Amino acid sequence: MPHIFFTPKTIAVIGATANPKKFGNAVTINILKNKDLKSKLFLVTQNSKEIMGITCFQSVLDISEEIELAIILVPAKAVNAVINECITKKVKRIIIVTAGFGEINDEGKQAEKQIAEKCRINDIRIMGPNCVGIQNNEIGLNASFIQAAPHGNISMISQSGSFGCASFYAMERENIGCSKFANIGNNVDISFVDILDYFNTDSNTKLISIYMETITQGRKFLELLKEIILRKPIVIFKGGRSATGMKAASSHTGSIATNYKMLKAAVEQAGATLCESASNFIVALKTFSFLPIPQGDKIGVLTNSGGSSVLFSDKVEDFGLTLVEFSNNLKEKIKTHLISLVKLVNPLDMIGVAGESQYYEVTKAMLEDPDIDIVVPCLVIPPFLEMKSDEHYRGMIRAWNDTNRKKPIIPLIFFGEDFEELKKFAQKEKSPIYYTPQEAAFAVKILVERSRIMNKEL
Amino acid sequence: MPHIFFTPKTIAVIGATANPKKFGNAVTINILKNKDLKSKLFLVTQNSKEIMGITCFQSVLDISEEIELAIILVPAKAVNAVINECITKKVKRIIIVTAGFGEINDEGKQAEKQIAEKCRINDIRIMGPNCVGIQNNEIGLNASFIQAAPHGNISMISQSGSFGCASFYAMERENIGCSKFANIGNNVDISFVDILDYFNTDSNTKLISIYMETITQGRKFLELLKEIILRKPIVIFKGGRSATGMKAASSHTGSIATNYKMLKAAVEQAGATLCESASNFIVALKTFSFLPIPQGDKIGVLTNSGGSSVLFSDKVEDFGLTLVEFSNNLKEKIKTHLISLVKLVNPLDMIGVAGESQYYEVTKAMLEDPDIDIVVPCLVIPPFLEMKSDEHYRGMIRAWNDTNRKKPIIPLIFFGEDFEELKKFAQKEKSPIYYTPQEAAFAVKILVERSRIMNKEL
Repeated sequence: MPHIFFTPKTIAVIGATANPKKFGNAVTINILKNKDLKSKLFLVTQNSKEIMGITCFQSVLDISEEIELAIILVPAKAVNAVINECITKKVKRIIIVTAGFGEINDEGKQAEKQIAEKCRINDIRIMGPNCVGIQNNEIGLNASFIQAAPHGNISMISQSGSFGCASFYAMERENIGCSKFANIGNNVDISFVDILDYFNTDSNTKLISIYMETITQGRKFLELLKEIILRKPIVIFKGGRSATGMKAASSHTGSIATNYKMLKAAVEQAGATLCESASNFIVALKTFSFLPIPQGDKIGVLTNSGGSSVLFSDKVEDFGLTLVEFSNNLKEKIKTHLISLVKLVNPLDMIGVAGESQYYEVTKAMLEDPDIDIVVPCLVIPPFLEMKSDEHYRGMIRAWNDTNRKKPIIPLIFFGEDFEELKKFAQKEKSPIYYTPQEAAFAVKILVERSRIMNKEL
Repeated sequence: MPHIFFTPKTIAVIGATANPKKFGNAVTINILKNKDLKSKLFLVTQNSKEIMGITCFQSVLDISEEIELAIILVPAKAVNAVINECITKKVKRIIIVTAGFGEINDEGKQAEKQIAEKCRINDIRIMGPNCVGIQNNEIGLNASFIQAAPHGNISMISQSGSFGCASFYAMERENIGCSKFANIGNNVDISFVDILDYFNTDSNTKLISIYMETITQGRKFLELLKEIILRKPIVIFKGGRSATGMKAASSHTGSIATNYKMLKAAVEQAGATLCESASNFIVALKTFSFLPIPQGDKIGVLTNSGGSSVLFSDKVEDFGLTLVEFSNNLKEKIKTHLISLVKLVNPLDMIGVAGESQYYEVTKAMLEDPDIDIVVPCLVIPPFLEMKSDEHYRGMIRAWNDTNRKKPIIPLIFFGEDFEELKKFAQKEKSPIYYTPQEAAFAVKILVERSRIMNKEL
């Protein structure tokens, strides 16, 4: 039950400092940023009497109130003594941010093991060492030294703090975000399983994402995946797949990486979404954040650009999927909106003259068609014929809204990253944009996979 | 010799119009945008006497001067008559922008074949039909209905006009651009080979890029690749790799797509860089635009973020490459700049505290190391310790400049796309940024491949 980590009534930052070049300062500032935070903060340091107007304590033992969460940022050699005080104080949970343990040498491994054992005996759960901390956006708690994630419905467990940090930059750009975040670092105690357990029952967590380099409690982890997957999608990205990567991972979080092929087979069998690139990881989060799960795998494609739909078709076949043939009924319906040059085949190339109304009408007709489960409107933003750069996208989204967003739509705006008005509209409408054929095809693939899992279990 | 297409002394736009909803207007406007253009423009239309202050001709035959390039934008059914007039007029080159030929049905195939034959007999070369036109940034000529590409040293042949258009958006973002651009559409006459021949001898073309869906004159094409590749890198992206994609391509440019596996083997054997995603295509252009070719395949990696170097290491091994062990000499050199927690292994994880000076010193030491050919500085931009978002990148680039840019550097700024000051600095310094471990690893892969080709041929 790691929920106290995410909802502590009282927090002690041990190793707090006014020096802006220290992580003990970054964590303190991040917690204090939220003036409405209900959790009460205590600062512990032997070097200052007061930091940012807050009176400091020399030791956690000097605090009269009960401490639910202690965050330790003192140098590695001082950690053990601080842990002893935390045990005496009977703090409930500890996050050891300090690095310099199992990730650097055997001595460090030994030290973190002893700390873990000591805490276990005293019923104290530990996160870390060598981690950035945790975040809970629901209560506005950023108990980490990195920036707060944008707020959303994803909850994330990352074995690497900087991967979390980088992901937040990407999430911000995609208008998605986190409910909760935990960086487990060297995971001497709290590991994936404990946090998964909590995310499973947490109602604000609609989608779970995991960056892992090593896995402990493998059997239990897989069992949990299988249990959760029917209610929430789980997106996993594994660093240290290769021998070179494993070696790098072992100097990063100090543990031997897992055999990737075995993990891959097991995780996919459990029904989780496994990503093999950072871009796909973000695409998966975006897809499950915004889109409903389709009923089947029947794909309909429209475009103003032959090239984009050719490339999408290639990628979709790489993923073992194919495009359906349009029904006569659908052909009749869309024909009236198109110029005579347009061939009524899937992908439907409406040519460069197609504007908002064509995108609206054809997208809507496909979304309403009983023989299509997923609609992929492709677009290269036309720099000609006085077209507005966001008009086609507006047409697609209007069609999606008018059909109550019942089916997933994958708007592929090829290399359209720099069109600000488009992105503003997407943000306002809470709708996704995909920027390459590969991204769009990957989104279709994982939606179809999830649809199969949900149907199998019915 | 297609160079008249790119440097015509006189141009006739046949099907010019003042109606902004027509492509005949877009081409006219694009040519007129450059007030200093040396090529003389004539507008031909039966519907207006004057367009934008320019007196129009009823027929190309009414123009007294010789016409080097005619650009045809009249409706498909009127094209044949216009071609006849162009033959009578003895125009030298024709671009048929008009669509509605081989890409829609057999009748259209027949029609375009007859036009091609007629022109061949009369010694007139044709580009198209079903194309957007051509561009030559060196003389400021945009004879197409899409936006002018940003100016740079890439010359591009695209079978799809919209793929060109989308690529220009991506090039703009990456601070790279085109010298020349041609969209060959249904390529009834001018095909890859003719234009490649020209790009081969063109001194402003440092790098050739090709988007192809179908290939004609396969043997000659491959022979040319082999000849050019020793002087200029050639980057190829093939649309219509799969059966689904081929079907889509055939309704796009009206031709049967080529067997991909055979093409892939032949193209790679010829030494060209084959890309299998749009992102990699842009990464390849960026890489060859900015970076020197390495002497060998020895990779050195530094980072402030374990996760990013773990993921880079995974991808690099996917491409059959590995990281070298650091020499004792290098270890001694870099040690003084690092905190004691840092393990002196490759990838070198300098941890989050590393700032500009560490990035400068360590990048420089690696660039100067005789046992390292390629340096990959990885970074997750730190949101803490009052660091500036561009300081690490500045450090890397300063080290690159101080070593005279002799070796390639691959700055991986993980998901750093939205840091404006970083991008401004990159633009000013004419240096690249890679945003994901996959991108960075792909750049290393193609640089190593090119290095092997150049060394083999010495």
